[in-house]
Amino acid sequence: MLNSDSFALTLSCPNQPGLVSVVSSCLYEASGNITEAQQHDDTITGRFFMRVVFTLQDRARHKALMFANMEKIAKQYQMNWHITDRTRKKRVLIMVSRFDHCLVDLLYRWRIGELIMDIAGIIANHPKELYAHIDMQEVPFYYLPITPETKTTQEEKLQSIIEETQADLVILARYMQVLSSNLSQKLIGHCINIHHSFLPGFKGAKPYHQAFERGVKLIGATAHFVTSDLDEGPIIEQDVTRVTHSDTPADFIRKGRDIERRVLAQAVRDYIQDRIILNGSKTVVFGD
Amino acid sequence: MLNSDSFALTLSCPNQPGLVSVVSSCLYEASGNITEAQQHDDTITGRFFMRVVFTLQDRARHKALMFANMEKIAKQYQMNWHITDRTRKKRVLIMVSRFDHCLVDLLYRWRIGELIMDIAGIIANHPKELYAHIDMQEVPFYYLPITPETKTTQEEKLQSIIEETQADLVILARYMQVLSSNLSQKLIGHCINIHHSFLPGFKGAKPYHQAFERGVKLIGATAHFVTSDLDEGPIIEQDVTRVTHSDTPADFIRKGRDIERRVLAQAVRDYIQDRIILNGSKTVVFGD
Amino acid sequence: MLNSDSFALTLSCPNQPGLVSVVSSCLYEASGNITEAQQHDDTITGRFFMRVVFTLQDRARHKALMFANMEKIAKQYQMNWHITDRTRKKRVLIMVSRFDHCLVDLLYRWRIGELIMDIAGIIANHPKELYAHIDMQEVPFYYLPITPETKTTQEEKLQSIIEETQADLVILARYMQVLSSNLSQKLIGHCINIHHSFLPGFKGAKPYHQAFERGVKLIGATAHFVTSDLDEGPIIEQDVTRVTHSDTPADFIRKGRDIERRVLAQAVRDYIQDRIILNGSKTVVFGD
Amino acid sequence: MLNSDSFALTLSCPNQPGLVSVVSSCLYEASGNITEAQQHDDTITGRFFMRVVFTLQDRARHKALMFANMEKIAKQYQMNWHITDRTRKKRVLIMVSRFDHCLVDLLYRWRIGELIMDIAGIIANHPKELYAHIDMQEVPFYYLPITPETKTTQEEKLQSIIEETQADLVILARYMQVLSSNLSQKLIGHCINIHHSFLPGFKGAKPYHQAFERGVKLIGATAHFVTSDLDEGPIIEQDVTRVTHSDTPADFIRKGRDIERRVLAQAVRDYIQDRIILNGSKTVVFGD
Repeated sequence: MLNSDSFALTLSCPNQPGLVSVVSSCLYEASGNITEAQQHDDTITGRFFMRVVFTLQDRARHKALMFANMEKIAKQYQMNWHITDRTRKKRVLIMVSRFDHCLVDLLYRWRIGELIMDIAGIIANHPKELYAHIDMQEVPFYYLPITPETKTTQEEKLQSIIEETQADLVILARYMQVLSSNLSQKLIGHCINIHHSFLPGFKGAKPYHQAFERGVKLIGATAHFVTSDLDEGPIIEQDVTRVTHSDTPADFIRKGRDIERRVLAQAVRDYIQDRIILNGSKTVVFGD
Repeated sequence: MLNSDSFALTLSCPNQPGLVSVVSSCLYEASGNITEAQQHDDTITGRFFMRVVFTLQDRARHKALMFANMEKIAKQYQMNWHITDRTRKKRVLIMVSRFDHCLVDLLYRWRIGELIMDIAGIIANHPKELYAHIDMQEVPFYYLPITPETKTTQEEKLQSIIEETQADLVILARYMQVLSSNLSQKLIGHCINIHHSFLPGFKGAKPYHQAFERGVKLIGATAHFVTSDLDEGPIIEQDVTRVTHSDTPADFIRKGRDIERRVLAQAVRDYIQDRIILNGSKTVVFGD
Repeated sequence: MLNSDSFALTLSCPNQPGLVSVVSSCLYEASGNITEAQQHDDTITGRFFMRVVFTLQDRARHKALMFANMEKIAKQYQMNWHITDRTRKKRVLIMVSRFDHCLVDLLYRWRIGELIMDIAGIIANHPKELYAHIDMQEVPFYYLPITPETKTTQEEKLQSIIEETQADLVILARYMQVLSSNLSQKLIGHCINIHHSFLPGFKGAKPYHQAFERGVKLIGATAHFVTSDLDEGPIIEQDVTRVTHSDTPADFIRKGRDIERRVLAQAVRDYIQDRIILNGSKTVVFGD
Repeated sequence: MLNSDSFALTLSCPNQPGLVSVVSSCLYEASGNITEAQQHDDTITGRFFMRVVFTLQDRARHKALMFANMEKIAKQYQMNWHITDRTRKKRVLIMVSRFDHCLVDLLYRWRIGELIMDIAGIIANHPKELYAHIDMQEVPFYYLPITPETKTTQEEKLQSIIEETQADLVILARYMQVLSSNLSQKLIGHCINIHHSFLPGFKGAKPYHQAFERGVKLIGATAHFVTSDLDEGPIIEQDVTRVTHSDTPADFIRKGRDIERRVLAQAVRDYIQDRIILNGSKTVVFGD
């Protein structure tokens, strides 16, 4: 569970003996108490990954010391590191197109306190009337229509919103539009897409129809970080469900909605709890 | 459950009203009692598929009548049809290479009566010593080594064995060799391969290593009919299992063994119970 | 998929040879075209179960004939039978208490056309303000508070609503109140409850806490018909999800919500598609 | 993966700040390199659980220091602790009755190196002829028939074998006999049973028949530590598979075999990799 008073440290660095000890001592010296610690040795790349959740006995007094300690060891061990202060909730933007099941699901989980985050805005390429049945509460709604001609301008607006809202994460909740290579690059590690197939099968458009044509016996959904390479980004979470010969493409779509919303919600949860660390074209996801 | 005294009728034909009635009346007139009946309307191709398991009140007297009745309606309704007399067990050949987990599993299920079939032979491209720990009982073992030079000769021997043993089904139980286009074509609908990936992802060689490289969160296995197009044949059964960032390719292989043997056994079971009907590049599998 | 122009016949009777033929001929004579047919022989009780979906070539002309035919054979073969005319949607009442995740989910699936039914009313033992975030559209809302003293009166009101709305089905969507034995009895086969455990484990109150205490590694949810015997009614659908030692009761509740809404939605779908037939204390559920 | 040159430390103690740091420093001072570390705070009981896999730079020189360090902190922090030297494989005894699917499966996984352990013996209450198809290699076979009259004597022999073979773990691989309360007590934490139901549902005899009677839609299997309280011991692993109304008790048994062998193998794997720590009537299982 999210401890709102805690910090989450994530790091990766070249592996070498003693790293767990180094990190835990560094935090201990700053009065830190570790409540969760997970690590991973990538034996192929030789990199070490770690996630530590900890509290400080006296935040006011020890926070600066803790950061100073971390900076020292980070330098020494060539660490990529990040510390999240959990008194500040992560800020997310949700982008959506015609199909709203993922949006509705994320909003519900947020409303009942299952996903602890600030929704900084909802961005759609359809007008707000399309979502009349959804209670968006106080969340700002941005209508950003898009055509081949206006794509560049639209994306500039999108970038402004991302900056203004200080969003940590952009969620493509069945947004159905491809971000430009440039923007994808900028958002690496901070933009999650839900693709409605079990990647790497059935990339691109109409994956359920592709799956139907191929005659698969399971369909799936994949949440992944967006990169400039369509549907090739690092995978965060996947799941599948059974289909049979009697299921039509419409049935695939119906059954798929359940997987999509579950898989996307899990990936968002992993993100806001600092459970995901990029490892090249892959992810390390420290489960709960 | 397999009723050893029953017949299994499978058929497909252009759909039209009244087919269920036509078939059930045709069997009823020959004193048939239907114990299982399953049907499928492919609304896209307009074809109708049916599987009927039935007994005859007086086999000796009514069997000929039943076949005559069926021939009549089959002609009238342009049916592809097949009737299996279940007093004769299906005959299967199991082909295997170095990894024997699927072979061992099939033999076990056969020994305890879970898979009711005759194993007409085990064919391996390694000598029998490799399988010293396996009790093959009375099943003939054929050692057919293969090299690029001997591939044609080896396959001729294989074809002779298939013919001599009157095998209904050839099972590639992790055989790891690609059958020639010619032989694949001949065996269509009668040769099942287990591919160690969730097709269509990761075709070809070393699929677990491919899956590891891509960073998927689930791995799978696929049982499919062999066609001349590698790993593109009609899918019969698939399943998956969860993997994480901490799983190495060796872990993928280990976890995969469990799925492979389960998926292959299910596909073989479906075949020997006449549950599978080809539908172009797909299958209709009437579940139990 | 639901064919709005079709009929669904469900029946059960003592098994005997020729039943499939009898039923299909009976419909065929009334110009019926069978689009789905499923059957089940309960070899232990000797009863036969069947579900047939069919259209009539000329509804206006043949509907009466079809019913007359069915009545004749029903009498002859001692059938319990029911025919649903699918031009009329099933009418459901949804009952809810404090937790609204199942209600929200059912409303969403109904709104987007996934569950094709009429929601005749929403009944809660909490005032409407509690559900302020939910768009109930035109669905009547009934506030029926309940205390030990008012239980009898409250249930009388409930019965009136059921009668007035001509509800086919009452859905206890985490209603958390036990219906009286009398009302349970009246509603047999027409009232579905979602229990938040994998029955028969953890009956009664606080099942997630019970599951936590027992240290299970999977938690589940069960949709079942309500009977006068608490949590003992015929099971329609069940599913589970994985938990670990690190999950608290709060995590069980969170993970459980996803299963509950999925399992309940599936059971409701099975009901409105006439897929469920009672078989004593069990159900026959003809899957799609 | 099992590193044959490593140590595995498991411990539990009252939780307090700094424990991760204390343990990692203690090992680091003895030239230990931590390759895996997992922890769990039981927030309800206030106990802390940890599993650490580590190597020593110079075994010969530092092993004694490492143990001395651990003893010191163990005393200070009231730790229950255990260190396994993985150069010695765990020794297991497999007990079996008529059904041999779990035995065959464990032997296979052991033979191909998936389960790295020494099988110290196979104990059966049926004579060896019953297992004629199984290649037990060099593993000693003990025939210990049992009747109500000989139960005490039989169990004394069993105890002797456990002592003589210095077995770490006794596996009841569908042994179907209840151990005496006395022996169960002695073996706590070192005897794993596979029960063929999803506990706590369907304790005791013939669980598949019980499940069939109840009309469940999923069946399961449970691996748990044996205690003197039948089928109430701490659960290690569970899994389920789907059944329908068309499955007979014989189908339940068939489908169940697949779950039983998978669940038992996973529990044994967890045990021999020191992944399981007892937590009262529950287990902490640090997954791989």
